[in-house]
Amino acid sequence: MSVPASVLSTLDSGLDASLDRLFELMRIPSISTDPAYTADCRRAAEWLVKDLTSIGFTASVRDTTGHPMVVAHHAGPSADAPHYLFYGHYDVQPVDPLELWENDPFTPKIKTGTSGRKVISGRGAADDKGQLMTFVEACRAWKAATGALPCALTILFEGEEESGSPSLKPFLAANAAELKADFALVCDTGMLDHETPAICTGLRGLVGEEIVVHAANRDLHSGLYGGAAANPIHILSRVLADLHDADGRVTIPGFYDGVDETPRDVLASWDKLGRTADTFLAEIGLAIPAGEKGRSVLELTWARPTVEVNGISGGYAGKGFKTVIAAQASAKVSFRLVHRQNPEALRAAFRDFVRARIPADCSVSFQEHGGSPAIQLPYDSPLLAKGKAALAAEWPKAPVMVAMGGSIPIVGDFQSMLGMDSLLVGFGLPDDRAHSPNEKYELSSFQKGQRSWARILGALAA
Amino acid sequence: MSVPASVLSTLDSGLDASLDRLFELMRIPSISTDPAYTADCRRAAEWLVKDLTSIGFTASVRDTTGHPMVVAHHAGPSADAPHYLFYGHYDVQPVDPLELWENDPFTPKIKTGTSGRKVISGRGAADDKGQLMTFVEACRAWKAATGALPCALTILFEGEEESGSPSLKPFLAANAAELKADFALVCDTGMLDHETPAICTGLRGLVGEEIVVHAANRDLHSGLYGGAAANPIHILSRVLADLHDADGRVTIPGFYDGVDETPRDVLASWDKLGRTADTFLAEIGLAIPAGEKGRSVLELTWARPTVEVNGISGGYAGKGFKTVIAAQASAKVSFRLVHRQNPEALRAAFRDFVRARIPADCSVSFQEHGGSPAIQLPYDSPLLAKGKAALAAEWPKAPVMVAMGGSIPIVGDFQSMLGMDSLLVGFGLPDDRAHSPNEKYELSSFQKGQRSWARILGALAA
Repeated sequence: MSVPASVLSTLDSGLDASLDRLFELMRIPSISTDPAYTADCRRAAEWLVKDLTSIGFTASVRDTTGHPMVVAHHAGPSADAPHYLFYGHYDVQPVDPLELWENDPFTPKIKTGTSGRKVISGRGAADDKGQLMTFVEACRAWKAATGALPCALTILFEGEEESGSPSLKPFLAANAAELKADFALVCDTGMLDHETPAICTGLRGLVGEEIVVHAANRDLHSGLYGGAAANPIHILSRVLADLHDADGRVTIPGFYDGVDETPRDVLASWDKLGRTADTFLAEIGLAIPAGEKGRSVLELTWARPTVEVNGISGGYAGKGFKTVIAAQASAKVSFRLVHRQNPEALRAAFRDFVRARIPADCSVSFQEHGGSPAIQLPYDSPLLAKGKAALAAEWPKAPVMVAMGGSIPIVGDFQSMLGMDSLLVGFGLPDDRAHSPNEKYELSSFQKGQRSWARILGALAA
Repeated sequence: MSVPASVLSTLDSGLDASLDRLFELMRIPSISTDPAYTADCRRAAEWLVKDLTSIGFTASVRDTTGHPMVVAHHAGPSADAPHYLFYGHYDVQPVDPLELWENDPFTPKIKTGTSGRKVISGRGAADDKGQLMTFVEACRAWKAATGALPCALTILFEGEEESGSPSLKPFLAANAAELKADFALVCDTGMLDHETPAICTGLRGLVGEEIVVHAANRDLHSGLYGGAAANPIHILSRVLADLHDADGRVTIPGFYDGVDETPRDVLASWDKLGRTADTFLAEIGLAIPAGEKGRSVLELTWARPTVEVNGISGGYAGKGFKTVIAAQASAKVSFRLVHRQNPEALRAAFRDFVRARIPADCSVSFQEHGGSPAIQLPYDSPLLAKGKAALAAEWPKAPVMVAMGGSIPIVGDFQSMLGMDSLLVGFGLPDDRAHSPNEKYELSSFQKGQRSWARILGALAA
């Protein structure tokens, strides 16, 4: 179904009213990580329930042991209409340092951004209140203009995304039947630039491991014992150095099991995005891609698995010098996973790899820090084609398929717990300063984001 | 010259009086690192000047910017008699935690030690008041029994050994002509066991280096940049892992220049000392010598050079996990030197070695943390033979030649600033608990130490 013109015109004529609603929501300081704002979080949830109810959703605040969830349901035009779950979050990041804000973070306003374009300024403008309201407004316009929604919808708004989502998995598990839909729509990603929409088709998974190498039963004087006693920093350095070969490939046996080569046409489309080693690395003061040789920086960060040491410590690291041989040394190591790499198989292979490098009179202990598989929406998915077409109709430039090096845990949870793939569409821009002072959301993102969702809902109904 | 029997009998009959003198000195709480005891440090120096003067030395308290030195001179029996400099220190370590002491640290007493043998208990008993008084008592007995000393002597007692000796080098430089002697005698080492005296013929040198590997211009999100951006912990781990080959040898080009093989007879004598990999390493919870393969633990720690990483840090090392790629990572690395290894040549070779392993878009910075060459008394030194013979005449078991993995800075200073080698003889035992509560010195160390010095002075006079 293509979107009726009346839906789009309803959105256009209702822009000011939609901004009023967004500003009402943004004025509620729903900072989830600070207990001082617990009541505000609930107030934001209640505001959303009321707003969704006004559109025709059956909506409710659902208690958890932390901040509440908002769950809302709306029937589709027919019993066999496709059913989608939309996910967003109503909580926001803290605002300190407050003195760096140009205007009060909870008094949103329209102003002219550094680009010369109009922006919505305030905490939550982009992450995630502005984004989630693009979807809510699209629903409102469909209902107002046509009297119905084009598909059955469930909405899940979380209030703990910025504080680790402790209640999310238990809530998904306890309400799996209610929340399960054909597909999830997640609006927590961004555009390539302000004219080019993007669909994120891949998210790397993550495995975290902390290893501690234990040698002598106490710290030793390196003069008295150096040369005879095992040094755990040496052992650890050898382990970490062994993780990559001279070509930057990870050497853990079986590491590349389940890793697919990215299709040539996808790689070619990424090459057109203009993010070369020069531009991508120059911004961070580097010049030479450090990972697997012969691959572009976008392939390396979007579609290849990695091992990165995120922290290392051992011995004396204070000012000056201490001639000590430490009793232990430790490192935090994370793996970014792609495609069908198995987090737990990889963790086991890593532990074997490490153990094989520990001398017989030393030992190693491990601590797990989470594990989640990668997300990969098949490049030939019909939903992907529909989403692309809808975005192509709205924006000046054709949509691009991108991937993300990082993880969005909810997408993995939807897949593993509810068996749902996700379509990841969002209208944020890289300079939105989410989590920082002077967060903003482009006014065009808000306006054309609403129209985009209106088009996508129409496309997905077919 | 062998020692006259009258000198030894004077020592034997004077033991109680010598203990009274030692206890007087030990009652002065000359804790150099604590400004509250500044007057006590001076009082200890003055006590020594008075005591040395009573023997016939020309002695004086010599001011420094810190605690004073004691310098004393005594002519030899003739103008061409050999001239020795004896070094010791009158300052002591702090005594906390005081509640762990069985008796007041500054109220010395004779008691029965855990071995069943009599010991002198109190702070400074072994380090270094008891040791230095063995030499002073030997001088007193020579003078009392024969009316003269067998050789010309200069004595230097320092009051800042336990607080880093900040005034020592300036004092040596300013008084080089006065302090220069044919040879130095240093009493700050120990015996192999309570029946076996030892002469320390080698002290390893030390070079300290701190290296910082710099990569991106800021900490990066490992999801967004991992696989494309250089990780300084990876680079550092590779550098550190490369420092040793599979046989435990250091791979820095030129590292072994100036390193001699230890004579077979010396190695054989060390093998008889009973410190095998089993005994030496078991005490610290290890079992396998970690350094160069095919060498004993005593050779590894006494006569072979090493590279040890004393500390490493980079990225996130707190609780939990942070998926960061650090902007920099650093390590503190020290080298123990033997024989004629050149500290500055080695530092330069190390820096070249590191630089060669830094990617072109990253950098490394270095900070120097001191450098001193090794000390090696030639195994065929005539003084060594004399010292051995004197000790052999006194103790139940033959003296052993040992080395020390650590450094005694004064010995290096005597060599580099005054051109003097040192004979390192002392009567401490490994369980003397220097620097700890309940420090003790064996009564037999004090008594036979006096007799040993009396014999050595006679032997050195020849």
